[in-house]
Amino acid sequence: MRAKFITLEGTEGVGKSSNIAVVENYLRQRNLPFITTREPGGTPLAEEIRQVLLAPRDECVDENTELLLVFAARAQHLSQKIKPALAQGTWVLCDRFTDATFAYQGGGRGISLSKIAQLETFVQGELQPDATIILDAPVEIGLERVTARGSLDRFEKEKHAFFNRARDVYQQRANENPGRYHIVDASQAMDVVKSNIEKIMEQLITT
Amino acid sequence: MRAKFITLEGTEGVGKSSNIAVVENYLRQRNLPFITTREPGGTPLAEEIRQVLLAPRDECVDENTELLLVFAARAQHLSQKIKPALAQGTWVLCDRFTDATFAYQGGGRGISLSKIAQLETFVQGELQPDATIILDAPVEIGLERVTARGSLDRFEKEKHAFFNRARDVYQQRANENPGRYHIVDASQAMDVVKSNIEKIMEQLITT
Repeated sequence: MRAKFITLEGTEGVGKSSNIAVVENYLRQRNLPFITTREPGGTPLAEEIRQVLLAPRDECVDENTELLLVFAARAQHLSQKIKPALAQGTWVLCDRFTDATFAYQGGGRGISLSKIAQLETFVQGELQPDATIILDAPVEIGLERVTARGSLDRFEKEKHAFFNRARDVYQQRANENPGRYHIVDASQAMDVVKSNIEKIMEQLITT
Repeated sequence: MRAKFITLEGTEGVGKSSNIAVVENYLRQRNLPFITTREPGGTPLAEEIRQVLLAPRDECVDENTELLLVFAARAQHLSQKIKPALAQGTWVLCDRFTDATFAYQGGGRGISLSKIAQLETFVQGELQPDATIILDAPVEIGLERVTARGSLDRFEKEKHAFFNRARDVYQQRANENPGRYHIVDASQAMDVVKSNIEKIMEQLITT
């Protein structure tokens, strides 16, 4: 079985961190080598770009600037970490990837999805995740959790409507390609969410 | 007469700073409002991206990452500074612009020029400088000056061949569009260079 590229997606506060641990435990128990990484970020340079992207600032950030920064970080992450890992048989588990760009910059900011797709091809060529798990919950629930955590970054400061549009784009993308996407209802009890994710992983390691 | 967008280009150490002062003095003497700016940079966010680009680092920088960072800074600079200035009748004098991307990332790094042109259209649409002054001198002369200045950034550390390829791209672009480009032999005496630049400016304010 070749190493696979799994991405976890969802709006703020849907429980990505705890459910990444579920996937990690699953892979660990089966002795499958893996790395966990995140976007934007994943390498020292890409993490520097993440800081530039997330820092709250007075200067108005042009939407093309934001989009190009996201893909600059992604190009670095792909070439220096994701592709080398997959090539040596290591599974890659990534907290957010290009679906988040479609959801946040496309749905949230209203940048045309075809413009995003153009940069996706520019940076990724044909490369796509093997499986994308979308943790889905009403935006209100997630934002309450995030606010409780403390100071907010430039995205977390956005309004409910922004995240509702992002959630809609995640759902549209999942509907258009049910083979790759798995929507998990993250408002369920944690052990139910865990068991849903384990079923997805079961399917993934047997195909 | 509408406000114009003038860019100064050239490889390292060709005397851009002193000759920017020549253009500034020319515009000042004619009471033409102008701003002087530079790329990558020109706004606080774009200057942060400049720091990320220029910092010497151990991590290998993917060529797409570098290219996308350059255009991310440019998108910000255009939307927040260059376009607003031109719109209110202020001339813009810019130390390097997209020709430098074709020269350094295209000629220097070997990224395909059509890939760069794709991002150029993505970020600039139809916008181009009204005039581009290329200060041209043998690479050896410029690099000696730069080395004498002290510690080198990630680009200044490149080899002679890199800058020779950049110089070739500048010349090709000038040959293909002589209406916009003006090559000035920067190895001449400073007052000769100054007088050449003043002639270019004379032509620019009368057209």
